[in-house]
Formats: sequence, structure tokens, C-alpha cells
Amino acid sequence: MSAVSASDAVSNGTASNDEAILLRSDSDGIATLTLNRPKQYNALSTGLMSEVQAALDDLREDHSVKVAILEASGKGFCAGHDLKEMRAGDGRTYFEAVFKQCSRMMLAITRLPQPVIAKVHGIATAAGCQLVATCDLAVASNDAHFATPGVNIGLFCSTPMVALSRAVGRKTAMEMLLTGEGIDAATAERMGLINRAVPPGELDRITLEYAEKIASKSPLTLKIGKEAFYRQIEMDLEQAYNYASEVMTTNMLARDAEEGIDAFIEKRDPKWTGE
Amino acid sequence: MSAVSASDAVSNGTASNDEAILLRSDSDGIATLTLNRPKQYNALSTGLMSEVQAALDDLREDHSVKVAILEASGKGFCAGHDLKEMRAGDGRTYFEAVFKQCSRMMLAITRLPQPVIAKVHGIATAAGCQLVATCDLAVASNDAHFATPGVNIGLFCSTPMVALSRAVGRKTAMEMLLTGEGIDAATAERMGLINRAVPPGELDRITLEYAEKIASKSPLTLKIGKEAFYRQIEMDLEQAYNYASEVMTTNMLARDAEEGIDAFIEKRDPKWTGE
Amino acid sequence: MSAVSASDAVSNGTASNDEAILLRSDSDGIATLTLNRPKQYNALSTGLMSEVQAALDDLREDHSVKVAILEASGKGFCAGHDLKEMRAGDGRTYFEAVFKQCSRMMLAITRLPQPVIAKVHGIATAAGCQLVATCDLAVASNDAHFATPGVNIGLFCSTPMVALSRAVGRKTAMEMLLTGEGIDAATAERMGLINRAVPPGELDRITLEYAEKIASKSPLTLKIGKEAFYRQIEMDLEQAYNYASEVMTTNMLARDAEEGIDAFIEKRDPKWTGE
Repeated sequence: MSAVSASDAVSNGTASNDEAILLRSDSDGIATLTLNRPKQYNALSTGLMSEVQAALDDLREDHSVKVAILEASGKGFCAGHDLKEMRAGDGRTYFEAVFKQCSRMMLAITRLPQPVIAKVHGIATAAGCQLVATCDLAVASNDAHFATPGVNIGLFCSTPMVALSRAVGRKTAMEMLLTGEGIDAATAERMGLINRAVPPGELDRITLEYAEKIASKSPLTLKIGKEAFYRQIEMDLEQAYNYASEVMTTNMLARDAEEGIDAFIEKRDPKWTGE
Repeated sequence: MSAVSASDAVSNGTASNDEAILLRSDSDGIATLTLNRPKQYNALSTGLMSEVQAALDDLREDHSVKVAILEASGKGFCAGHDLKEMRAGDGRTYFEAVFKQCSRMMLAITRLPQPVIAKVHGIATAAGCQLVATCDLAVASNDAHFATPGVNIGLFCSTPMVALSRAVGRKTAMEMLLTGEGIDAATAERMGLINRAVPPGELDRITLEYAEKIASKSPLTLKIGKEAFYRQIEMDLEQAYNYASEVMTTNMLARDAEEGIDAFIEKRDPKWTGE
Repeated sequence: MSAVSASDAVSNGTASNDEAILLRSDSDGIATLTLNRPKQYNALSTGLMSEVQAALDDLREDHSVKVAILEASGKGFCAGHDLKEMRAGDGRTYFEAVFKQCSRMMLAITRLPQPVIAKVHGIATAAGCQLVATCDLAVASNDAHFATPGVNIGLFCSTPMVALSRAVGRKTAMEMLLTGEGIDAATAERMGLINRAVPPGELDRITLEYAEKIASKSPLTLKIGKEAFYRQIEMDLEQAYNYASEVMTTNMLARDAEEGIDAFIEKRDPKWTGE
């Protein structure tokens, strides 16, 4: 965990840092969002989802931020939806609103111009596992545990499945979804759900290395590339090439590409302007 | 292999168990279908495909069955189509009917409300390999061998490829399809074609563990989830989330989800009604 | 590398072999195309792409060729586009033409009736990595290195991403694209980008083994199967089965399937006519 004391609370202004359910701290172009409901294993209450959505909406317009890290405080990353809150909810309209809010938040991560890295410790279950699958990259400590256990409570992890089944193979996804059993970090790495499983003591450092590496690139280039990734992957091959060729042409005409290629040819470091 | 003596023959009523080409035995919500043409390595004659189709049609309506196991008797799981029968067939209309029947049977596995687990020993080749790729889960003994060798007889495994290329990566699928060479169980596990490779002596026990675990869930939840899995995976991300959010809302309103969440909060075992 | 001296230059007729930027040598139904700009790490200048396109167009009509190998001379496989040439280019129309030419060449590999095997040593970066991802199969020596480092020069590898993201999992693809960091051959094998990583001294032999195995099949069957693979994978499951059933029916009516099945039943080697 990064030091909470250095973080800004982004939840309602009257809350102290200790009470804020989402924290944000920025450093050198890296914004860290910290889910901060540790006693509830950072369960995604509607309140927390609203905070995350607002934070993502802010990041989208914040050109000082080149990459985001999504982490969590306490003993685990995220236990999914807040079941007590859900159970108290009433009727189709309420549940529909909750699941749409959650899906909108997940899509906002995918559509954020900046890459997002999940930094995972402890449990990442149901919508918590979905967050990991949704982030562009994910680093986890060896003690992390990933599961989509909704089937155990009669509520199949249907929205988490959307992200999970696009990150790992079908047999793996089906086993997690049908049995409710989880996988450890090493298995998650092998299956493609995360990029790296690391010792707990290395989690901060290695996640930061990924973030710093990405933050050293042209933010314009990252934005062009990330958007193109998720668009082209849903096209057929010929469409994808037509689209990606246009994207590369536009990218090539940007000042950062001119500068990057010149720097490469001249064997010097590039200076990005973000244009 | 489960004991054939305890099984019901589902083929024509006059056949003795020994002659029935498909066996079904039920126990504790688990239906086991046994391909039973051991001398032909359970080749999928049109007769056997008709039996499997009929058995799947029965299972679909059988609310006592929560999960199905597909296994085979004799030395191997399934050697694909019955080549002698095929070669005796004549003309486009005949072959068209055979391949459509086979594809319809594969789709019926995917569309069955209950999860289906392939329990594989020995060879699983051509349409036999396709069965493994098609089942929701697959457990295989270490002696299993998977191949799509149609290219060796001038008949590319084009329909098996539909399932294979959705279960494993493209390079792996292409290697199997273009060379006709097979992979062993350990490789099949690593590539995502099966969930687990186990010692032959453990195959019954571990497959049953999977089946029992799944049979302990709400059948309604399993049905909702399995159907949603295969529908959402063919949608684009936004469509998939819209659809999955609706599915979860409907699921949430079912009695089994209420009961499951209450049981979870109250730390007791849920009692499913299937509603 | 295969001996260049035995190769035919396919570039303009006046060039000596040493100067030809693309070489082709044929042997026993196997055509080997060698990228031959070793001093430029076989960078894909518009000239080299034109040569490759022309060679693929020739192969398409050449019924003596059953399988193609794509290799490269010098210290590495291919470093991607020719940045010096690109940087000298001017304006949207020029860049558009370059990227469209490149995408057309990649599609031509996918649409070639004959399977194409990438034989990789040293670096395979940007469009060079895309070539590896695009070929139907890939064998690499242990010293090979794969990367999509465009982000380092402000030019995101958007067209390479089309092939890469269809060969490996999303998290792996995103890590390569966002960080610009490469992976070694063992990792590439584990991730599904290549079929086999082999000792450098075995690269020729093992690639040739793949090629010879494929060349021993019916070229008609290979053509039917390869085309069907890339078409069905972009369809939904039901469409894919309808289509693949038709393909198998047509394949079954071909003389090579009759011969193949007869040979199998009679336990003898088949004699392909390619019809």
C-alpha cells in the first residue's frame, strides 16, 4: 500500500482521509486510486462505484496523468459487490441500476485514455476479479486469490464473466465460473489473467516500475494505442487492418512520432510534447 | 469407466446393455453418458450421434439432472466419425446430412442448460477431439491423446476446428490441424483444451469431484450462467455488458439468489429451490 | 539460414543474388522466401514489401508449392518498417500508402492457400513481430527476441497489434505494446506467439521437419482447411458450424478425400492428385 497520509480524499469533502472510501495520490504523472473500505474488503457499494466513476472521469481530462494504478487498502483487493447493500435493495429497477453502474465503471477503465494497472493483494473476487481482468495490466502479490464465486450464492458472476472470458481461455473461465473455486497468483499469471505474480514485498516496486516505464512514453501515443487496441480487437481481420492503418497514419503525422523517430535515428532520448 | 452393468441403455429397447451404443446412468443429480462402441473406438456413426442427440434432448428437460459427464468405454474416448460408414455414403446430400447432424449435436452440448464435463481416456481424435473442446469442462487421464488428423486422410478437420480454435490459441490449433500430429494430456492442459490431466487411477474420482461440486449449486443459476457465457462471448464489449447486466438483474430477482445471499450473510448452507 | 547461393533472386533481374532484397528457393514442394536486407535487419522498405507481395502473388498460383517458409538473412529476422525511409516520406497520402501496403502483405499471408511457417532468429520487432504472429506457424531459435516497441518512438504498433492480439492473450499483448519491452523465445512459445523455441543449431532442421510434414499432405486439403480456419474464426458459433459443415461436405466429395479414406482403411499411403 502507498502511504495513505499523502493521499487526497476524493469522496465528499467533509470526510477525513481515514473515512474517504476512495483515495487518490499523484506522483510524476502516475495517479494511484486506492479503494478504501478495508473492513468490507473494499466491496463495491454504489457509493464506492460512484467515487471510482468520478475519479475516472477526472483522470480522463487530466493531462498531467499518464498512467493510473488501481490498488486497495486492508487485507484484500476487492470482494465484489456489497452484498448487504444489494440484499437491502428492492426490485428490478434497483438491481438494474446497480449492475449498469458497475458495467459503466468497467467500460470507463477500458475507455480511459491512460493505461490502468491493477495492483492486487489478497482476494480479488467477483466484481473484484472483474476489475483485475478489466485493467490493461495487472501485477499481483503471490498471496493473491482470484475467484468468481457468485454461483455459490445463487448469483452467477455474469458481468465479471464478460471481462474474465476475454482475458483467459474458455475452459479456465468456465471452471472458475461453474465451480466457484479460485486460482492463486501463479495460476492467474499462467492463464493470462495477470501479467506478473511477485513476492508481496516486491508488489509496490514492480508495479511502480511498470507505471514509470509507461509514464515515460508519449501520452498521445498511449492514448492512440490503447483506444485502437480495444476497437480493433472487435473487428474482423480486414476491417481491423483498414482501421489500424488509418490509426498509424494519423499517429505518424503527430509531432511526438516525428520527434520519436528523429531521436531514435539520432540515438538520443525523445522529448514528448503530447501532440 | 463406470460400471456398465448399472447403466440404462438408451438405444432401442430391444438391445441388451452390452449392445447399447450409448449408456446413461444417473446418480445424485449427475447423469453420465457413456459412448459404447468400444471396438470402433466409439466412432460417431450416425446411429451413435442420433443416440447422443436424443439423450441431450432428454437431459434438457430433465430437472433432476444438474450436471452431465460424457465418457466412453473401451480403450479410447472417441475416434471421430465412422469412416467406413462415411465412405459407404454417397453424394453431397448424404455428407451434408452427416456433418449437419454432428454440428447440431455439438451445438446441443453448448446449449444444454446443464454443464457438461468430458471425461477423457485414450484417444480423442477429429470429432472426438471436438467433443472435448465443446464440453464446458474436460478432465483427462495422463494417457489421453488429442488430435485433429483429418489432413492425413485428405479430409481437413473443418468442423472440429470450430470448437478447437475457440478453446486454444491460433498457433496451437493450426499446428494440430495442418500437421495432423496430436498432443498429450499435459500439453492439452497447458494449451487450455482441457482443465486437468490426472493419473488414470484418479480420473473417475477427480471428474466426479468436479461434477459433485457443480451439482451442489443452484441448477437455475447454472443454467442462467452457462447460457449467458456462450451468448456474451460473441458480442462486442458494450453489448456484452448490457446483456450481462440484464442477466444478473433477472438472476438477482430469483428466489435462489435471495436464498444464497441470505445464507452467505447468515453463514449457513443455502437450500436451492431451482426458482 | 539456408545457403543463399542456391537461391533465385526474385527482385529485379539485373541484381546479383548478393543484392537481391528477397530470395526464393524451392525444394520438394517447399518454397523458402528469404528477406535479404541483412545490414538493415531486413527492415520492410516499400521495395522489400513489394517483393514479398509479388512473391506471395506468385506462390498463390504455383501449384508446385505446398508450403512456404519465411526466413531472413543476417543477424535478425526483421526489425519492422524502414524508419529512415518512413521519416523521409511526406504527408498523409504517403504514410497511408505504406501502411496499406504492409497490411495488404500481411493479409496475403493469411489468404495464401499454402501454409506459411515463420523461421525466426534474432530480433522480430514491430512489423517483424507482426510477420511472426501472422504466419500460420512459427519456429524460433532460443536467441530470438520479439517486441512491439513502437511506443518508444512515439508510434504505437497499431497494425502489428492486429496480428499480435489475435495470437496471444490480451494482458500479454498489452504489456508488449504499452511498455515496448520484448519477450524471449521461451516466453513467446508459452504465450502462443510461436509454436516452438529450439536451439539455434536445430532451427533449420526442425523448421524443415514441419514443412516436410505439411508438404506430404494433399495441397487441396490444406487450401480448403487454411481458408476455412480464418473464415470460421470470425463467425459466431452457429454460423461457423453451418459454414464448416458445407466445407467438409465439399472436401469429402474431392478425390483426395476418397483416396485418403480408402488408403486409411486399406492401411496404405495415400497418393494425392490435388483434386
